[in-house]
Amino acid sequence: MNKALTVAILGATGAVGTQMLACLAEQEVPVGELRPLASARSVGKTVVFQGKEVAIQEAKPEAFDGCDLVLGAAGDDIARELLPEAVRRGAVAVDNSHAFRMDPQVPLVIPEINADDLSWHQGIVANPNCATIIGLVPTWPLHKLAGVSRMIVSTYQAASGAGEPGMAALEAEMKALVGGDSMPAPQAFAAQLVSNLIPQIGGEQYAGYTSEEMKLQDEGRKIMHLPELRVSCTCVRVPVLRSHSESVTLEFERAVSLEEIREALDQAPGVKLVDDLGAADAHDRFPMPIDTSDQDLIWVGRVRRDLSNPDEARGVSFWCCGDQIRKGAATNAVQIAKLLCS
Amino acid sequence: MNKALTVAILGATGAVGTQMLACLAEQEVPVGELRPLASARSVGKTVVFQGKEVAIQEAKPEAFDGCDLVLGAAGDDIARELLPEAVRRGAVAVDNSHAFRMDPQVPLVIPEINADDLSWHQGIVANPNCATIIGLVPTWPLHKLAGVSRMIVSTYQAASGAGEPGMAALEAEMKALVGGDSMPAPQAFAAQLVSNLIPQIGGEQYAGYTSEEMKLQDEGRKIMHLPELRVSCTCVRVPVLRSHSESVTLEFERAVSLEEIREALDQAPGVKLVDDLGAADAHDRFPMPIDTSDQDLIWVGRVRRDLSNPDEARGVSFWCCGDQIRKGAATNAVQIAKLLCS
Repeated sequence: MNKALTVAILGATGAVGTQMLACLAEQEVPVGELRPLASARSVGKTVVFQGKEVAIQEAKPEAFDGCDLVLGAAGDDIARELLPEAVRRGAVAVDNSHAFRMDPQVPLVIPEINADDLSWHQGIVANPNCATIIGLVPTWPLHKLAGVSRMIVSTYQAASGAGEPGMAALEAEMKALVGGDSMPAPQAFAAQLVSNLIPQIGGEQYAGYTSEEMKLQDEGRKIMHLPELRVSCTCVRVPVLRSHSESVTLEFERAVSLEEIREALDQAPGVKLVDDLGAADAHDRFPMPIDTSDQDLIWVGRVRRDLSNPDEARGVSFWCCGDQIRKGAATNAVQIAKLLCS
Repeated sequence: MNKALTVAILGATGAVGTQMLACLAEQEVPVGELRPLASARSVGKTVVFQGKEVAIQEAKPEAFDGCDLVLGAAGDDIARELLPEAVRRGAVAVDNSHAFRMDPQVPLVIPEINADDLSWHQGIVANPNCATIIGLVPTWPLHKLAGVSRMIVSTYQAASGAGEPGMAALEAEMKALVGGDSMPAPQAFAAQLVSNLIPQIGGEQYAGYTSEEMKLQDEGRKIMHLPELRVSCTCVRVPVLRSHSESVTLEFERAVSLEEIREALDQAPGVKLVDDLGAADAHDRFPMPIDTSDQDLIWVGRVRRDLSNPDEARGVSFWCCGDQIRKGAATNAVQIAKLLCS
């Protein structure tokens, strides 16, 4: 990747778009020209990239003329409308929305798992859902070890999953609770989130499961090339600003030792094993959102046999945390972009 | 229960002891004399019972002279030291500590499940752990329906599980976060809880599981008379003041329809079924801690087939919430006391 690229960010003002700017710089993508794109009402504002202010342009088809790469951080509708326009103009697009993820013409990629799928893209590559990325990065090395046949996952998803408005809502509610003020009416979430849990993310999609819950199965099957994988997921919003966590139970096709599991996790790309209940400091014992925020690795801990599995050698449970805005969205997209442009 | 009883509360100043006072009045236990007992440093203070101030007495063996009933809300060591003294003086004791729960001479009781076990008590009856009660109340009617063989549970446990100090710590941390002040050093928990999750409750007990996690299996086997029950639990502290929540996946011995499951839950004592993802108001859609705090029922929702189970007719997943201080501790203990004294 020697050529300086013309890079557009579609939805440059949101939490993910802002993080993409930072990741482009951190991952040393050779950006010649940056075009931060947003709706017309943001025109006149600027974003900061590599220490310089860059004017926001309106997101419309002509904005992609001459672009090499587009990073999509907008909603489904805008992605569907504008990214094909970018591709028509010769760009490749890595899109973080849900719009193209299950399209059979579009690779859905976690670089640690299926970078090979980038070979057949037709201009658009989809970035998986945040909870999918955070759960699958540590599941994949265990699948390679023993074959995953079943996943049972309960998530603990941060306010950042609903973007800046989600984080702002949680902060405002926290302030109201501390001040003894009346709680602001729920906007970003269906109910008050501070000192509460909301066990519904997305609308009902299938058999009592929400759209968010089905993503882990549907996207997981596509990414890992496991069309028969059985996944049951319960997605819960928790009053944490940033970093999603997941309690994961896996069943394997083959028996495998706990030592092999730990070693596979310890050596897996993108994973940091933090698993020592006896450590003196809680920060060294297990993954926690406060430790995993604003960094790129998926931390994994609480690795142990699933005591409920009648064949203990074919089961494991673990706990993982990862930054939803970074590896759950922006970092993964920029990793894909680097591979595409290299 | 017509006779006016002399009732002592051991540990009357804590979160559970205070709630026991309220539950005694609410459940109309005929208290003639109330003796709130606490450590010597609380002597001189009072508690309020049925609108009247009652002086705290020092918790020592003689304090139980003439007592009919003792409700234990103290720690394991104090329970072990003093409750046998109370029994020796003719009282029956219902203890909320862990001290006697797994003692084969002591019934461990959730009235909705195994009230019959009260018949063989020898003076002490143990109250189960809060997370056990909240998870088992809805599991029991499903066990009666189809035979539960396996439970996989991820908990979302409130600060109240660590008593008043736990709630005070979360409130102080929230204040610091909102005010931009430096975070107070962790005391009630191993790490900061506000905007964080702590996936370790209790010390390591067995094979990487914590003491809190093993309670659900060990106590569940005893309460449900299922010595072979397989339970895998992941216990996580969440920044919620009050009310524990649990994501539960069950496997059954026999096939059962979702309609039968819902009907069994709807008719089960102690359970409120709140399960309508399509409802207009989030408060009517699923159980949430803010709705289940300071009331006595276990709310159950998100009832659906476990899609990961190869035999879907033999599996279910649900979400439940209950007040940890009430049904998880004080209410259950007072329900037992009423049965013992009736």
